Amino acid sequence: MARITAVIDFGSNSVRLVLFQRTSRFGFKVIHESKQRVRIGEGAYHNGGVLQEKPMERAILALMGFKSIMNSFKVRKVLAIATSALRDAPNRNIFLNRVRKEVGINLKVIDGKKEALLGGIASANLLHLSKGVTIDIGGGSTEFALFENRRVLDTFSLNLGTVRLKELFSQNSDIEGARKYIRQELSNLPNEFRYPTLIAIGGTLRALAKVIQKRNNYPISRLHGYRYSYPIERDFINSIIYSSNSELLKIGIKQNRLDVIRWGVLIFQEIAELFEIDEVVTSGVGIREGIFLFDILRSSGRRFPTNLNPSIRNILDEFQVDDIKVVKHAVRTAHTLFDILQPHLNLDSKFRQLITYSSKLLEIGIKVSFYENSKNGFYLIINRLIYGISHEDSLLVALLVRFSSKSRIADEVLQQYRELLPPKSTIDHLHAIIYITKLLLSDYAPKSKFRFAYIDNRLEIRIYSPPLFQMVIAKFQPLENLEIELIPEFEDSK
Amino acid sequence: MARITAVIDFGSNSVRLVLFQRTSRFGFKVIHESKQRVRIGEGAYHNGGVLQEKPMERAILALMGFKSIMNSFKVRKVLAIATSALRDAPNRNIFLNRVRKEVGINLKVIDGKKEALLGGIASANLLHLSKGVTIDIGGGSTEFALFENRRVLDTFSLNLGTVRLKELFSQNSDIEGARKYIRQELSNLPNEFRYPTLIAIGGTLRALAKVIQKRNNYPISRLHGYRYSYPIERDFINSIIYSSNSELLKIGIKQNRLDVIRWGVLIFQEIAELFEIDEVVTSGVGIREGIFLFDILRSSGRRFPTNLNPSIRNILDEFQVDDIKVVKHAVRTAHTLFDILQPHLNLDSKFRQLITYSSKLLEIGIKVSFYENSKNGFYLIINRLIYGISHEDSLLVALLVRFSSKSRIADEVLQQYRELLPPKSTIDHLHAIIYITKLLLSDYAPKSKFRFAYIDNRLEIRIYSPPLFQMVIAKFQPLENLEIELIPEFEDSK
Repeated sequence: MARITAVIDFGSNSVRLVLFQRTSRFGFKVIHESKQRVRIGEGAYHNGGVLQEKPMERAILALMGFKSIMNSFKVRKVLAIATSALRDAPNRNIFLNRVRKEVGINLKVIDGKKEALLGGIASANLLHLSKGVTIDIGGGSTEFALFENRRVLDTFSLNLGTVRLKELFSQNSDIEGARKYIRQELSNLPNEFRYPTLIAIGGTLRALAKVIQKRNNYPISRLHGYRYSYPIERDFINSIIYSSNSELLKIGIKQNRLDVIRWGVLIFQEIAELFEIDEVVTSGVGIREGIFLFDILRSSGRRFPTNLNPSIRNILDEFQVDDIKVVKHAVRTAHTLFDILQPHLNLDSKFRQLITYSSKLLEIGIKVSFYENSKNGFYLIINRLIYGISHEDSLLVALLVRFSSKSRIADEVLQQYRELLPPKSTIDHLHAIIYITKLLLSDYAPKSKFRFAYIDNRLEIRIYSPPLFQMVIAKFQPLENLEIELIPEFEDSK
Repeated sequence: MARITAVIDFGSNSVRLVLFQRTSRFGFKVIHESKQRVRIGEGAYHNGGVLQEKPMERAILALMGFKSIMNSFKVRKVLAIATSALRDAPNRNIFLNRVRKEVGINLKVIDGKKEALLGGIASANLLHLSKGVTIDIGGGSTEFALFENRRVLDTFSLNLGTVRLKELFSQNSDIEGARKYIRQELSNLPNEFRYPTLIAIGGTLRALAKVIQKRNNYPISRLHGYRYSYPIERDFINSIIYSSNSELLKIGIKQNRLDVIRWGVLIFQEIAELFEIDEVVTSGVGIREGIFLFDILRSSGRRFPTNLNPSIRNILDEFQVDDIKVVKHAVRTAHTLFDILQPHLNLDSKFRQLITYSSKLLEIGIKVSFYENSKNGFYLIINRLIYGISHEDSLLVALLVRFSSKSRIADEVLQQYRELLPPKSTIDHLHAIIYITKLLLSDYAPKSKFRFAYIDNRLEIRIYSPPLFQMVIAKFQPLENLEIELIPEFEDSK
């Protein structure tokens, strides 16, 4: 299954194309993104909102370019959506007809509520949070979505945007005036959206998160799922609002964000203070992923089934090397071990799922190269296990795979990721489970030829197959934090 | 096509399994390796060469384990070969029958000439050298193969091995006696094998190369294709012969090599001095790859077709993302650019092939992840473009792909790999070719909508497609070492 769906997101500033490849019913990944700064609204403000010829021409050319890309990738389905950029233009139908006739693309204009819903669906399904409120600060409006258990419960859209604020307040740098205006608008927001975990969608808040990530020397470069404490960053965030352009450039804000970043952060700050936010979680996904998910999840209640992680599904779809039976056997072995060790080693049961993921992904690095395949597995997981999982958890899975053939995880690696990892003893025990699983998988047999027992603070592994026993005993190295005894259980073995 | 071939290499010390996956007629990769230290000859020396029960039992168990792995990977073909380990055992047929009956594997015993041929075929086809002599120092014999243009011209086998020397000379550490013995044996070697480029196969010489690589802070961790100057390393190599175990451990020799490494290096040194070697090229491939290639190349004269690089073939088989027509278009564009620029920029025509590879592999990083796909492309190429290419060339291809969307290659990267790279101006020009190729590929159209001309030290690019022109002009950034002018060639463009 290699169906490719194109999503076109026609925004006020840019027009974007994203190509999603489906690898199974719920497995997918992005295989292409293009972006063109069309600025469709250029000149419209001074002409009663009427779209002008030049920007329309740019838009048509951009969409023609996208069309060429879609042809090359043999796109099967096109979902093209326009937001506030076209919503209020008096001549929007003329433009939409031109697009249809000249490019052959049906652009559909959606309202703010729908926009909020799409961002909400994306975050609810592709982040790891059971509950939260998404906020997407755009040029002309700000969207909110409240979700719980992967389902969007309610949405709201406010006429509050960076471009609007800039137009109204930038000439006199009237920040206090802007604050009043924002508060006035926010007073329309129903109380149910006030929730202490805020999920930040969109370019402004991503740019802010990037700066905060850099400031804190965060050890992973991924932005999707990045969390920070609002109270800790409060002063820094406030300082951005009052920074000069050159100060903003110095801390890493890109040139093309300079004109609106301060207004965006101002809106964000007002919301954060009003909501009494604890934590901000950055969402790398938004309306585009929402459009795609809205389509593929149409017959499953707009959400993934419980326990389905779309990244894991997609990685296995693409990179699984060996027999599915062997993978299942690995998972069973790891589960058995976890369940036997858990009560004795006080392992939190939340780690069981990570043990599932790790045992499923044990061998995927081979797809990059057999040589150093554990390192390659780490690389793949860090780059691909991104949806529906926290940074902490995906890092832990990556490390368990990387050191699955070693008797210990290298100290410098533990040191490097210290702030994201559980206590050393927990890591050691989880590592032991994966290490033993891999060891007992040496013969790749899809069935158990061994039994476990935990007796007198020692894990006994009875092995019933002579060839497997010979393999295991040759490779085995004692572990630091778990005593293990390998016992041959067959004739001639004593 | 996912046919998997198993190769079993039954040696004196270890029994090894390698699984090769074919991805097309000439594309393949290793997907599994297992090794067991069976030491089949244990005790045989004192019993007239007769294989003893215990090691035979270990061997049977090892092969049973391999059998289980082969089943899991759904192996279609098994090529199982034994070398000197079984060649001289009086009871070898009893053992071979047991293997056939108890495990179901047909082990075929080959002679020294055939062993040399297999190592030669592997190196001739999977290294980047047009001519060379391979040398494989084993426990009981040393094999030579002379090859040219991927074809083995002659082979030779000497009764000269590390275990033999150890048995004869180690009690009195009689190195001078050993030298005489080696020279005596080497005098049998025909003169045609004396060639200044020596290709080092096998564990002993790989271990030596690893130590030399580390000593020199070599910037790539790959051993296959690693070259060093014999004259420069001569003194160091000599010192190994006279080192104590603890000194050897300190420089990185593994515990299990300590007993024979000195004797192996001694043989190597004598050969190197006799041949007046300039350069040693390490081969990560040997008899196992030779067995596989001997099979798949049986109808093409035991060699790959000219211009066929098996790694490139295999990478494209597995990781090609977009339309094959687009890839061909990229290659054509890059070639056109190369041919236009070459006379003006004094580019060596040897780089044309690297431009081919780079343009073919431009997009493969997407398979790991679209996000940061240039970095992922670098990672894939460094790990997978390993056969039939020098380290210098595969690194250059990897760097051209990694920086294909940037207007320049980062200085720190150039610095890091300095010793392996051509002059900066050459890199800049090759990078320009790939950068422009990628830029003009923005619309993924499989046909040229542009023309090049080099006039007055400037590259003119005339673009005939308005959508492409709009894309290109938005992305384009000036290059340091090549002046470029983008010229729109359509109505309304002036």
